[in-house]
Amino acid sequence: MIKVNRYISVIGGAKCTERERELAEEVGQEIARKGAILICGGRGGVMEAASRGARQAGGIVVGILPGQHREEGNPYLTVALPTGLGNARNAIIACAADAIVAIGGGYGTLSEIGLALKMNKPVIGLDTWKLEHPVVSCGIRTASNAQEAVELALFLISNWKGEPE
Amino acid sequence: MIKVNRYISVIGGAKCTERERELAEEVGQEIARKGAILICGGRGGVMEAASRGARQAGGIVVGILPGQHREEGNPYLTVALPTGLGNARNAIIACAADAIVAIGGGYGTLSEIGLALKMNKPVIGLDTWKLEHPVVSCGIRTASNAQEAVELALFLISNWKGEPE
Amino acid sequence: MIKVNRYISVIGGAKCTERERELAEEVGQEIARKGAILICGGRGGVMEAASRGARQAGGIVVGILPGQHREEGNPYLTVALPTGLGNARNAIIACAADAIVAIGGGYGTLSEIGLALKMNKPVIGLDTWKLEHPVVSCGIRTASNAQEAVELALFLISNWKGEPE
Amino acid sequence: MIKVNRYISVIGGAKCTERERELAEEVGQEIARKGAILICGGRGGVMEAASRGARQAGGIVVGILPGQHREEGNPYLTVALPTGLGNARNAIIACAADAIVAIGGGYGTLSEIGLALKMNKPVIGLDTWKLEHPVVSCGIRTASNAQEAVELALFLISNWKGEPE
Repeated sequence: MIKVNRYISVIGGAKCTERERELAEEVGQEIARKGAILICGGRGGVMEAASRGARQAGGIVVGILPGQHREEGNPYLTVALPTGLGNARNAIIACAADAIVAIGGGYGTLSEIGLALKMNKPVIGLDTWKLEHPVVSCGIRTASNAQEAVELALFLISNWKGEPE
Repeated sequence: MIKVNRYISVIGGAKCTERERELAEEVGQEIARKGAILICGGRGGVMEAASRGARQAGGIVVGILPGQHREEGNPYLTVALPTGLGNARNAIIACAADAIVAIGGGYGTLSEIGLALKMNKPVIGLDTWKLEHPVVSCGIRTASNAQEAVELALFLISNWKGEPE
Repeated sequence: MIKVNRYISVIGGAKCTERERELAEEVGQEIARKGAILICGGRGGVMEAASRGARQAGGIVVGILPGQHREEGNPYLTVALPTGLGNARNAIIACAADAIVAIGGGYGTLSEIGLALKMNKPVIGLDTWKLEHPVVSCGIRTASNAQEAVELALFLISNWKGEPE
Repeated sequence: MIKVNRYISVIGGAKCTERERELAEEVGQEIARKGAILICGGRGGVMEAASRGARQAGGIVVGILPGQHREEGNPYLTVALPTGLGNARNAIIACAADAIVAIGGGYGTLSEIGLALKMNKPVIGLDTWKLEHPVVSCGIRTASNAQEAVELALFLISNWKGEPE
């Protein structure tokens, strides 16, 4: 029984650009190649592209769906979980991950970034939100391509010290 | 890519009797043998026994955990998802399933039975709560052993007509 | 600033009998007369009748709604809170209460009874579910009328010892 | 029976600067003076200051608490609701509001801003996060003082067109 210890959530818009789609697919492939489990919101756009990439590379993909029906999931999910929680399911996508990779994305993605940072999880961004605050540091680490993003995520997971701050 | 369409939640106490443990293990095995995905609350007792059974038979097991830490999951989960939702995670265990098998169990199990019936999902009981109400029918169907329970669950899933009633 | 310390959730069906409606209205009145805050699911039937009773007696009524729109609340709510959580909002109705009064009710009510008992909160039943279990005690205390139900709830709250068991 | 139609959530850190505390207290006062209901996370810092301001001005204050215990609420709440949902309760703070005023704040506040914008609710910021995105507009409207923030919130509520965009 192989013990897989690392879970990475990929977050981003249900609608996305072609470049985001390509990035997401590569990120999904990298996650699967490293033997990590991919979590996502289970729907289209970035979520679907990442799911497709991970499945192509033989990985496990978990979709945490906002609605009550499994049919809203994309076709690449290994496990599709309708939650019925609406946007509150974003908290699960952050909580269930050891690290998060954000690709593009809109306000839903922004909320997941906030939730993940609040839970002190590493967040790696690819072409996503830039945050500025009078006092608090931004918190998002940037990567320049898919491979770097996943390697950084795995590095930060292995050095994760828990919930200080 | 094999499409697995059926998800069965097994619910029951984190503490349980030896008989419940045996029943749960058999139910888990049967679910896996039929190619369905097993969902559970991810912890000990009935949940752990069902998980062990399903993994022994080569199945996929998803644990929807109440807390924030993956470590609270039992060692047989394929996918362990900390939700941070506490008891509200019981609603996901009901929502994400196509049918529910209840084995023994206490008040948490009772709440999951209620949530599943509210969502009009088939609930099959093995040595679990008996419900009586002045007007409403009980809703739980009983089975006399593990194999019967899983067969009944799959039969009811394949005949499921959706949400009215 | 008056400190109100006691919160009682009244649970029951969105559809109900005339007798349940009368019971609920009286329960709502009693809760308000005792200076406690009434929590409910915010919708029709038992929830609306209890809300009306409490408002008539000058009380505060909080409706925890399953959907995203305040308009689904009944007209007697002092505070109407759309949660967007669907049935998972039932866990809040149990968690936010010091005691629960169940009047009639269907599967949703059953789930709230289970959640409240799981959280070790007192549950008082009026013409509601009867529960039997091979090992676990039922947990619901019965009252014969509205006044008795609320008095028993307040008595049990004042003697509440917290989460053991 | 006065019908109060407007609910404003005030979000910000459980720890905050003296200036944020003053701003929050004034925002709370303004909300109460306009007859709106104040929603917040129910804890210290910005939440407590806003609650105190609203109560001083005779308003109703609702605290949506992350934990299971009412005692974690600040002393100025009219209604204190423990949810047991942890950070997922942030989705309720956004969902239950007609508009949101963000004062300073950290990652939790950022998540609430994202959730509110996702739900297409007006968000007014006072010394809070600045957001930049390659494609999406920031979404936060800024105000220069407490009175302006609340007036803008009420104006946007009265002109709110619903969920498209």
